Amino acid sequence: MFFASDNTSGCPPQVMDALLRANDGYAMGYGNDPIMVRAKALLREVLEAPEAAIYLVATGTAANSLALAIACPPWGAVFCHSHAHIAEDECGAPEFFTNGAKLVLVPGPHGRMTPEALQATIARTGNGGVHGVQRGMVSITNVTEAGTVYTPAEVAALTGVARSHGLPSHLDGARFANALIATGATAAEMTWKAGIDLVSFGGTKNGLLGVEAVVIFDPAKAWEFELRRKRGGHLPSKHRYLSAQMEAYLTDGLWLRLAEQANAMGGLLGHGLTNLPEVTLQHPVQANISFPYLPPGTHARAEAAGAVYYRMPAPDGREAARFVASWSTTEANVAALLTALRP
Amino acid sequence: MFFASDNTSGCPPQVMDALLRANDGYAMGYGNDPIMVRAKALLREVLEAPEAAIYLVATGTAANSLALAIACPPWGAVFCHSHAHIAEDECGAPEFFTNGAKLVLVPGPHGRMTPEALQATIARTGNGGVHGVQRGMVSITNVTEAGTVYTPAEVAALTGVARSHGLPSHLDGARFANALIATGATAAEMTWKAGIDLVSFGGTKNGLLGVEAVVIFDPAKAWEFELRRKRGGHLPSKHRYLSAQMEAYLTDGLWLRLAEQANAMGGLLGHGLTNLPEVTLQHPVQANISFPYLPPGTHARAEAAGAVYYRMPAPDGREAARFVASWSTTEANVAALLTALRP
Amino acid sequence: MFFASDNTSGCPPQVMDALLRANDGYAMGYGNDPIMVRAKALLREVLEAPEAAIYLVATGTAANSLALAIACPPWGAVFCHSHAHIAEDECGAPEFFTNGAKLVLVPGPHGRMTPEALQATIARTGNGGVHGVQRGMVSITNVTEAGTVYTPAEVAALTGVARSHGLPSHLDGARFANALIATGATAAEMTWKAGIDLVSFGGTKNGLLGVEAVVIFDPAKAWEFELRRKRGGHLPSKHRYLSAQMEAYLTDGLWLRLAEQANAMGGLLGHGLTNLPEVTLQHPVQANISFPYLPPGTHARAEAAGAVYYRMPAPDGREAARFVASWSTTEANVAALLTALRP
Amino acid sequence: MFFASDNTSGCPPQVMDALLRANDGYAMGYGNDPIMVRAKALLREVLEAPEAAIYLVATGTAANSLALAIACPPWGAVFCHSHAHIAEDECGAPEFFTNGAKLVLVPGPHGRMTPEALQATIARTGNGGVHGVQRGMVSITNVTEAGTVYTPAEVAALTGVARSHGLPSHLDGARFANALIATGATAAEMTWKAGIDLVSFGGTKNGLLGVEAVVIFDPAKAWEFELRRKRGGHLPSKHRYLSAQMEAYLTDGLWLRLAEQANAMGGLLGHGLTNLPEVTLQHPVQANISFPYLPPGTHARAEAAGAVYYRMPAPDGREAARFVASWSTTEANVAALLTALRP
Repeated sequence: MFFASDNTSGCPPQVMDALLRANDGYAMGYGNDPIMVRAKALLREVLEAPEAAIYLVATGTAANSLALAIACPPWGAVFCHSHAHIAEDECGAPEFFTNGAKLVLVPGPHGRMTPEALQATIARTGNGGVHGVQRGMVSITNVTEAGTVYTPAEVAALTGVARSHGLPSHLDGARFANALIATGATAAEMTWKAGIDLVSFGGTKNGLLGVEAVVIFDPAKAWEFELRRKRGGHLPSKHRYLSAQMEAYLTDGLWLRLAEQANAMGGLLGHGLTNLPEVTLQHPVQANISFPYLPPGTHARAEAAGAVYYRMPAPDGREAARFVASWSTTEANVAALLTALRP
Repeated sequence: MFFASDNTSGCPPQVMDALLRANDGYAMGYGNDPIMVRAKALLREVLEAPEAAIYLVATGTAANSLALAIACPPWGAVFCHSHAHIAEDECGAPEFFTNGAKLVLVPGPHGRMTPEALQATIARTGNGGVHGVQRGMVSITNVTEAGTVYTPAEVAALTGVARSHGLPSHLDGARFANALIATGATAAEMTWKAGIDLVSFGGTKNGLLGVEAVVIFDPAKAWEFELRRKRGGHLPSKHRYLSAQMEAYLTDGLWLRLAEQANAMGGLLGHGLTNLPEVTLQHPVQANISFPYLPPGTHARAEAAGAVYYRMPAPDGREAARFVASWSTTEANVAALLTALRP
Repeated sequence: MFFASDNTSGCPPQVMDALLRANDGYAMGYGNDPIMVRAKALLREVLEAPEAAIYLVATGTAANSLALAIACPPWGAVFCHSHAHIAEDECGAPEFFTNGAKLVLVPGPHGRMTPEALQATIARTGNGGVHGVQRGMVSITNVTEAGTVYTPAEVAALTGVARSHGLPSHLDGARFANALIATGATAAEMTWKAGIDLVSFGGTKNGLLGVEAVVIFDPAKAWEFELRRKRGGHLPSKHRYLSAQMEAYLTDGLWLRLAEQANAMGGLLGHGLTNLPEVTLQHPVQANISFPYLPPGTHARAEAAGAVYYRMPAPDGREAARFVASWSTTEANVAALLTALRP
Repeated sequence: MFFASDNTSGCPPQVMDALLRANDGYAMGYGNDPIMVRAKALLREVLEAPEAAIYLVATGTAANSLALAIACPPWGAVFCHSHAHIAEDECGAPEFFTNGAKLVLVPGPHGRMTPEALQATIARTGNGGVHGVQRGMVSITNVTEAGTVYTPAEVAALTGVARSHGLPSHLDGARFANALIATGATAAEMTWKAGIDLVSFGGTKNGLLGVEAVVIFDPAKAWEFELRRKRGGHLPSKHRYLSAQMEAYLTDGLWLRLAEQANAMGGLLGHGLTNLPEVTLQHPVQANISFPYLPPGTHARAEAAGAVYYRMPAPDGREAARFVASWSTTEANVAALLTALRP
């Protein structure tokens, strides 16, 4: 009953097998391995973006921070949701990598920015001439931190606001595959066709050991990215082990199948929660994450039964929780959790 | 005939097996996995340092830069050899992570600092009061970039100079195991017993997929390290895969056996090179790396025969090369290379 | 009719005379001038803080940013009002000087934080362990950007909240003298007696050419401040010209008389505004600044009559303005402005 | 007998008068004062550069660091002399403002880089692909820290090397006027006609209270400069006092007359030193600075006689000194110093 995070899951056999195959013999380091050629081609195909610059790093924080750093100057504002991962869960990595850009927070229910709120926030920023930070870029998280999902049209509405101010847009896709499954969109529809310039294309939460791709649709910034990555300590010497994970992930649609399972189990759990007495959901369950309010005493009971998850104390003191399903979550796991939660 | 770098080798079966075992089931992320408890205990045992703070990161640049950042303020000088990896091969990562500390270079033959040169360099730095950078710390690379090795007594002589100025000392041990094999020293003798405060304890070049430990003998800086690591994007969520590599590496002396083989093959090659006509060595071969000057035409012949290595153009235009042996280099590999080099 | 800012005023003759006197002969640079000894003694006397470390810089942004940088680590949160000068008017200088600390904004009417709002903001920050920024410090602006004033008791309530979380408090006193005049407090009562650890003690807006003092009540951080100041390019070689301004400012209570005049004229203007038809004040006028909403057409009329001030477009589209009185504002100036504003 | 530095001198009456005139009445802040329009026009005229972007800051460290920051990326190398002010006397400000660029030192006698040494240093830097810092820019100091001077042809030879590698060149002209007087060159000949892209145009050491201009010949980087300046705390609100100094400095050739006097006295002193027994000069005296070796006992005798200067202990233990003449040095001062030095 492991629902703490999708990063508590292991990796599917296809990924481990790929690692073993990649281990055979010698390979040049730093991304110059032949597997990377194939992994890059696969990702470009998936994204329908034959010119995109593609790089791999080992963590989501690295992917996000490096992507922001090539798009936003130190004196720029990054517009993002108040509870974006870059705002709350990266210990200031975006500020560190950008040399001090400012995250300007856009409020919105259920972890989502509306175009109106984004527009209003941009409009009241950057009016101070040289005295204030300048408008820099927009960063959109999909799946959001609240477990909700933007459709491509909703993403396009946000990037449209960005574009109307001349700003580029970044997509934090730590759960990119889950967002595609939730919306039925293609990778291209969710990114460049919706006005996205830069993507953190997540793999770790969806079955890899630790690999995220950074996709830069306009390759003019590619060399700067390479230098920032190296300088950030994020260029692995034995790069082939990252390449191999990404190749396996993208082969035969594995990545989408993994997310399909995670979302299916997330949905099953969300549905089950609404059938429990006195349980309400803070946010609609649209992918693999649910945030229920629970009746008093539930935590103790569930944990005693072996459920592992994060308590999320509500501002009003109510018991609440975050449950994350992953590619390896089974119907039996969901049933067991629901049983443990039931009074 | 792969002698380009020890990072072009794969990983031994013990490491891959450990990954597969670690993959089983769920584990909490961010270093809170049970394997890390064991890996940490093993490393403390190896170092005879039961109190040391121990962290894992995926690259050597990350290990070095984060270690420097907790020991040297932005206005400090890091004294290191002119050709140290931190000075020449990390694209300014130390400057980035320290927020602008200055690497002050200590010259010396064969990649080595002498205590006298270090003393002289420190003595002429930091005399400018508030106008100049302050003396910050010393960083020693062992095995050096020239393939030479410091004995524990030589390390102690350098840290003694540092200590006489009140400065801490860092050991860049990207090839730490090779240095131990070359000198017969224990890990404790080569580090804290020799006055070292911080170690980058390398694993990647000696058979891991990508793991380095940072060892902080005085744990007072441990929490700052954790924050800097997170903020640098170097805290992996699925940390168990790093833990597992390090556990396997340290189990039953695997790490030392791997380095023993690398050094043995490095020595065999070094010896063979001196028997080739017109070949001279730039630096004594003390571990697994050799830097020969080669007669004209050798590069073309060797590469045609399939040898893979880095050409190192000498300042005087002579053909030169760097050959690195690894844990997976065999006597047959060495013999084949020597044959390819022979006129 | 110059009401754009108190920094559009010139300087009183006492200050210019002091400059001329200071110009006579030679003086050692970088703060080692004899005038600085006297200026420092005067400021310590004013603050009743014989041990305080005191430094001069030429701009308020430098004073604030350097003060924050010695009190807040790169991974820390600086809690301040949403409209604080450090948040809105320094182009990210705090982020630059701290190497990426995060300003966490505390909302509140009339430019003021309440202890409750501060407490709530701190309470919901820094709970993410290593994943989020850590609680760093509190910064309080007095006079606020809205022209309102905290009493010493109100400052103490805020620093009490800070202290209960173990955090130091900074006072941005760009208009420090105006705050003292408005409240009748002494400099000590408004600072260390109210729990303040660091002060930006402003002079420029109150009659100096360009000098702010940074006051550090605990001198343990003094040397770090000196290094950061130098490294920030804020250590003037001909420091005596800054010393001389500060000495003149603090001699015979000049600084308080200047602020008295500014506040008196600010109050007169505020009172006059409330007597104009259809004019309402956005914020209470407590020092030398007023923010009125004006009837349509007023801007055009006032500017045609020669009034110089900043238009402050209200979110609802209404005409609004900021009027700042200074030490050199006269009753005639106020009367003229009121006439120009009257329909 | 004040020969410690040209920054220990006061300011000529023309400058003080200009301050008093500037003090009259109100003026908009932050560079929007009418005096700045005139100062800018004068400097453009002096430089024969009608399109140049011109900004004022209060210190030389700020001028240099901000100029470097707009021309060199964080991963770039700044090539400069081993004893350049930016390398030795700014406490790492260039590293701070550039976010970690690396100063790569070019050796050379008498504080001067030769084109050959610059070429060799550039040639061996930046060959590491993504692993090493990239070639960034060249910075030339004129008058050098050793008191020697480059002719325009010599500057052009250095910038030619830079240009052949596609690199821009910065001139640290803290003693720019002294260099012009020493060489007879015009400001244009010494800068853009010699291939210089950016100038720190010093005023403080030559009679101003504290003003340096930054000149950017290609104004494309002007807005970035403005943002970096503000963010660095170097945009003064009461900017008119800086404008006024610069206007007075450039009016009727005052700046050149001041430097003429400083150089004349520097030359007189240099000549006198060579006539003293056992005194030799470390560097040729080409502007206003001399570095003599002195016989034992001279320091004590000269200081007892009231001479103020910096002792510069020679590596071999000999007594040595730095004497700097300024615009306010008189023949009588020089004679008195020589008498004090004579055994």
